[in-house]
Amino acid sequence: MMERLFTNALLPDGSPADLAVSAGRFVAIGQSIAAGEGVETVDLGGQLVLPGFVDGHIHLDKSFLGEPWQPHRPAADLRERLAVEKTLLAGVRPAAVRAEALIAQAARWGTMAMRSHVDVDATTGLSHLHAVLEAREKWRDRMDIELVAFPQAGILTCPGTADVLDAAIREGAEVIGGIDPHGMDGDSDGHLDVVFGIADRRGAKIDIHLHEAGLPGIAQLHRIAARTQALGLGGRVAVSHAYALGDVEPPVLDTVARALAGAGVAIMTNAPGDRAFPPILRLREQGVRIFAGNDNIRDAWWPYGNGDMLQRAMLIGYRSGFYSDRELNLALALATTEAALALGREGRGLEVGAQADFVALPAPNAAAAVAAPPAERMVVRRGVRLAAATP
Amino acid sequence: MMERLFTNALLPDGSPADLAVSAGRFVAIGQSIAAGEGVETVDLGGQLVLPGFVDGHIHLDKSFLGEPWQPHRPAADLRERLAVEKTLLAGVRPAAVRAEALIAQAARWGTMAMRSHVDVDATTGLSHLHAVLEAREKWRDRMDIELVAFPQAGILTCPGTADVLDAAIREGAEVIGGIDPHGMDGDSDGHLDVVFGIADRRGAKIDIHLHEAGLPGIAQLHRIAARTQALGLGGRVAVSHAYALGDVEPPVLDTVARALAGAGVAIMTNAPGDRAFPPILRLREQGVRIFAGNDNIRDAWWPYGNGDMLQRAMLIGYRSGFYSDRELNLALALATTEAALALGREGRGLEVGAQADFVALPAPNAAAAVAAPPAERMVVRRGVRLAAATP
Repeated sequence: MMERLFTNALLPDGSPADLAVSAGRFVAIGQSIAAGEGVETVDLGGQLVLPGFVDGHIHLDKSFLGEPWQPHRPAADLRERLAVEKTLLAGVRPAAVRAEALIAQAARWGTMAMRSHVDVDATTGLSHLHAVLEAREKWRDRMDIELVAFPQAGILTCPGTADVLDAAIREGAEVIGGIDPHGMDGDSDGHLDVVFGIADRRGAKIDIHLHEAGLPGIAQLHRIAARTQALGLGGRVAVSHAYALGDVEPPVLDTVARALAGAGVAIMTNAPGDRAFPPILRLREQGVRIFAGNDNIRDAWWPYGNGDMLQRAMLIGYRSGFYSDRELNLALALATTEAALALGREGRGLEVGAQADFVALPAPNAAAAVAAPPAERMVVRRGVRLAAATP
Repeated sequence: MMERLFTNALLPDGSPADLAVSAGRFVAIGQSIAAGEGVETVDLGGQLVLPGFVDGHIHLDKSFLGEPWQPHRPAADLRERLAVEKTLLAGVRPAAVRAEALIAQAARWGTMAMRSHVDVDATTGLSHLHAVLEAREKWRDRMDIELVAFPQAGILTCPGTADVLDAAIREGAEVIGGIDPHGMDGDSDGHLDVVFGIADRRGAKIDIHLHEAGLPGIAQLHRIAARTQALGLGGRVAVSHAYALGDVEPPVLDTVARALAGAGVAIMTNAPGDRAFPPILRLREQGVRIFAGNDNIRDAWWPYGNGDMLQRAMLIGYRSGFYSDRELNLALALATTEAALALGREGRGLEVGAQADFVALPAPNAAAAVAAPPAERMVVRRGVRLAAATP
């Protein structure tokens, strides 16, 4: 039984359509759908509809959003950056408040689901996790949030962290994180033993930050693929950034791509501005799932970012030399359906049976919206127009 | 005699200020300026004010803005791209109409001045130039437009073009263009003889597209610097793109940078997405003037671009790894005061005596506005708020 009919829309390919909704799901999508008696009609005025955006990598506990401007502070290395971050975060409002500000901003752009990494280490303990869990609970009807217990300061070099990571999974994080097994911890197998051990024991998913460059980074990807395969964790493991994939020659790239695809390890990229990053088309040709995330947004790591996954799709296309409609649509898929699948969420596209989530905006088709993202958005979740960014 | 007082603004550094205007110029900028009798007061509501934007490189005759979406068509090489462009442009509205659409969009974002390249060759003749001159005339009160006679198809390989370029300068173009002297024309000195010859004879400025990579590109820059010096054209010559500057090792870079700085040759960059480009900080350390432009906007060359120079500043910062406030402010300067100076327009900053052009937008300071450009803009030109994008 249809409850609401959105008329006069353009589908991502630019074709006109109406979208009928019942019980929060699409029950019909097509031209000239009859509303029937008692059905509320919403005229979309010829706007384009896109699937709800999915942010595959965000740090809700780090952002300064809603705080006075914090000029970026230089840091000589990663350790100094971590120290700077701790100092700056000590001077701003609690993580729960800042996380809510960022969720609200992402929701206004049309993000419906996200995976947030949350710092968990022996000194921070679970304080960030508790804060973000609190924000998540408030926004549960508005945003689907999956949490990664992220050992930002390393695991082996920060004694006690392994236990806290394990506790984080027990307390509500769905994903166990990792970071630069050699570069941060100097012991690739020791690091991965902890990460994969917790995942195996607790049934958690895995998402590892990998900044290690060149061939050493490729070697980590092979290790991760082999462990994923051995434990039968295909489809539940992701590597974020994996810059090394942008550093190496085609034969090396294709070999590791086949290993990742065969094991079911997905790759997250935000298309960084000033360094090489994974070549999306070539990896996909080998069967690797690629998805997108905003990563840091106005925090101690860098000042950029507005939380909009459509702008992120533009940046991914811009950085990848994507010009054709097919390529621009792929950039959008990384920020919508592919990210949803990487996070284990099926049925998030514009199709009958899927949750009736969409973003309406002024553009002739999805390719045009990616090439020059309009700021205006109308956000509909489970068939209901969201008037303001409140939980 | 003050005519209008803009109160409750933030200057680029975030400090509060009022801005007093008389006869279209700033007559006072500071805190708590008294309005006096009969002075109209406009409360800016705590918004940031930035200088009017200057687009140092745009192609007003190429854009499909206002047309139905044109999917990007692949092309094997530059010659094929030129053929594709001619075919696509034959199917859209006249260049004068499309140029106006792009000027209007740029004006809405707060662009006050621009340098537009316009295709001029033996087959196109002066038809594009006449169209853009017509659009420029209509928008003369709203936008300062400088025109480059641009030999997109080469000069020597397209016989008759040299004469048409010369005619273009006589008919209203202020700048003589060039393109890849070796890569396009296969005769560096022959190409530059024509370009510098016309500039010398007609008193025109010069702006050469240079896509040639690596050491051959560096050699062209040395040739251009030497000719600029020999003819005493310092400050009137620019090279657009100059990708080669992003390809070479520091000693080579510094040597050519000193040659460019010594000769007074400026470099324009749009921070392309998927290739190396000039390293801004290092070139400026050697004294080279760098300025920014949007380049192509939704045309046969690529689908990206919205005409906003604040987003361009963000892309330049993002691609350059600019994180500090000083660096973010530099990215903005490339799109405002530095571009104005490169175009020979003095007095375009927020300072007493300068033309009272500014853009007001919701941000705490200029660094924050560059890091995440807000879409909302209020545009004031010669002290008058522009309500809509009409000439």
